[in-house]
Amino acid sequence: MKQHNFSAGPAILPAPVLKEAAKAVANYQGMGLSLLELSHRGPEFTAIIEEANALMRELLDLPSNYHVLWLSGGASMQFCMAPMNILNENETAAYIDSGVWANKAIKEAKLFGKIDVIASSKEQNYTFIPKNGKVPKDAKYLHITSNNTIYGTQWAKFPKSSAPLICDMSSDFLSRPFDVTPFGLIYAGAQKNLGPAGTTVAIVREDMLGTVQRALPSMLDYTTFIKENSLYNTPPVYPIYVSMLTLRWLKKNGGLKGIQRKNKAKAAILYNEIDRNPMFKGTVTDKADRSLMNVCFVMEEKYVHLEKEFMQICKANGMSGLAGHRSVGGFRASIYNAMPQSSVQALVNLMADFAKAKA
Amino acid sequence: MKQHNFSAGPAILPAPVLKEAAKAVANYQGMGLSLLELSHRGPEFTAIIEEANALMRELLDLPSNYHVLWLSGGASMQFCMAPMNILNENETAAYIDSGVWANKAIKEAKLFGKIDVIASSKEQNYTFIPKNGKVPKDAKYLHITSNNTIYGTQWAKFPKSSAPLICDMSSDFLSRPFDVTPFGLIYAGAQKNLGPAGTTVAIVREDMLGTVQRALPSMLDYTTFIKENSLYNTPPVYPIYVSMLTLRWLKKNGGLKGIQRKNKAKAAILYNEIDRNPMFKGTVTDKADRSLMNVCFVMEEKYVHLEKEFMQICKANGMSGLAGHRSVGGFRASIYNAMPQSSVQALVNLMADFAKAKA
Repeated sequence: MKQHNFSAGPAILPAPVLKEAAKAVANYQGMGLSLLELSHRGPEFTAIIEEANALMRELLDLPSNYHVLWLSGGASMQFCMAPMNILNENETAAYIDSGVWANKAIKEAKLFGKIDVIASSKEQNYTFIPKNGKVPKDAKYLHITSNNTIYGTQWAKFPKSSAPLICDMSSDFLSRPFDVTPFGLIYAGAQKNLGPAGTTVAIVREDMLGTVQRALPSMLDYTTFIKENSLYNTPPVYPIYVSMLTLRWLKKNGGLKGIQRKNKAKAAILYNEIDRNPMFKGTVTDKADRSLMNVCFVMEEKYVHLEKEFMQICKANGMSGLAGHRSVGGFRASIYNAMPQSSVQALVNLMADFAKAKA
Repeated sequence: MKQHNFSAGPAILPAPVLKEAAKAVANYQGMGLSLLELSHRGPEFTAIIEEANALMRELLDLPSNYHVLWLSGGASMQFCMAPMNILNENETAAYIDSGVWANKAIKEAKLFGKIDVIASSKEQNYTFIPKNGKVPKDAKYLHITSNNTIYGTQWAKFPKSSAPLICDMSSDFLSRPFDVTPFGLIYAGAQKNLGPAGTTVAIVREDMLGTVQRALPSMLDYTTFIKENSLYNTPPVYPIYVSMLTLRWLKKNGGLKGIQRKNKAKAAILYNEIDRNPMFKGTVTDKADRSLMNVCFVMEEKYVHLEKEFMQICKANGMSGLAGHRSVGGFRASIYNAMPQSSVQALVNLMADFAKAKA
């Protein structure tokens, strides 16, 4: 049976990427060796990481004062690494609290400087993007989370800010074109749109670095990775390789503009059904904030007892990863770049059929 | 042609592990999904990490006051994370400088406390293990590097110490049985004996933690990983999976006692040839310190012009990764757990034939 993987992350990857990724483990380019066994200093991996860097630069249209870094530890490590590298103890950074991950970023940043949370939708269970914050004049940066996986909210347009933006872009990275120049730092765990779990990309603008007073351990210093081209020590070779394959796939499929068109179309199909179908409703209160990556919905109160049954029908039809986060409940369909429109349509068909049968 | 992968790391992995690892990327357990796409909170990965933990405990015979943690960032990250978690600024730690990696560990540790380098073989280009150090009475721990990949030296017996041992065991982890109880912390990048690059194991004894005054970011705090069973955030799923497969293979092949027997036999074949063959010599000055993992050798002075030719013959016979580190020169045969004796024998045969033809 055709499987439809709606998992929030680690998440669906393009089928041709997985095919090639499997081959590389068995026998890399006919060498008779697995990519897992090859030296990260050898010509094979050198070519891989150079291609990954070039594709990333091209797809994001990065100016030359931005560096592409391949790190480890997930976005959670960046929650501390970003302020550690950029914020002095007597300096202020502005944060917008749009969900659990933003909250964790705030918690870690407080160890390194003065943190001003300028807007939050916490009291409303993060059902919208709080846009009413004012960035203090002395803020060294403004930190935002571009997409909130748990709540299905997304910054449709990034906020204007006098301070450089720092953005946790983990869950919608590479899903749409955007102007990178207001960003001082972008970071993203690979395991949504980029690749498997195990590597984290940071896009750093040069002028963000070199102003902190504290001594930084080598592995927590962005400049180490800049100087050594992400090869100061053994990097996560295979996650970087699979990410490179995904970047290739993305380029071949129209780049960020092409994927945005597809992502918009897929999300529209699903949100239209949620709005049309009397049995379901979306959980995001401001429709302008609806995520194109994670579509969160529940059943209307009078049907809520049917949620379990519908979930079982989804499972019986090869659909997995559809349970909403426990703090939101209901359903969450994660429809990242690699999700085909046909899978979204299959879910929509089930929703329509179920409502017809039960309403 | 049969390939013989003598790479120092990322390094050879057992053939059956690679076969299963490739299958998991294509289609995990017949689910119709790749392991790379599956949630780290799902039943599949939960089973994987639980089995990995259980196998690690069993193979190392870990008492219950030791925790197994799956981290990221390589041993290089542990160079800072270990002292950050264990050493206060006014406290002293003893370090033994047995090579470049020990040296890096010392450099990072100096950011966190008083570091006493009690022995070093740096002046002799690290050609032996410096064993003449005295651990100061007030030392919070003694840090050693169990095996020095670059120089081909290894602690055959671990030093006695009044302070708990902290050991970077990256390049000989799981290659021999040992008593874990003198160790307060062991860490190892996976990419030698354990799995592919991308995960790092730490074995922490409970009493080592909880005494530092400094505030620790969540991702740099061992207790975060203890509390959350290495699942505070998305871990490097695939590297952990392949490591679990390798642990399974290790158990099936006689565990640490069984692998030690094989490792000793393999190393003996190669060192015997180096000592017997008039064309070659080992680079380690104290034979008791010779590594069973990385066998470093050069040509005798009168033959040194033939090194290039011999390397070409090795390559023509499917042997890769044999170049010695630039600071030692000559040859380095890394013969980790997964290296079959037949490959070592093939190299020895080439050495014998070459000497016969050229001497």
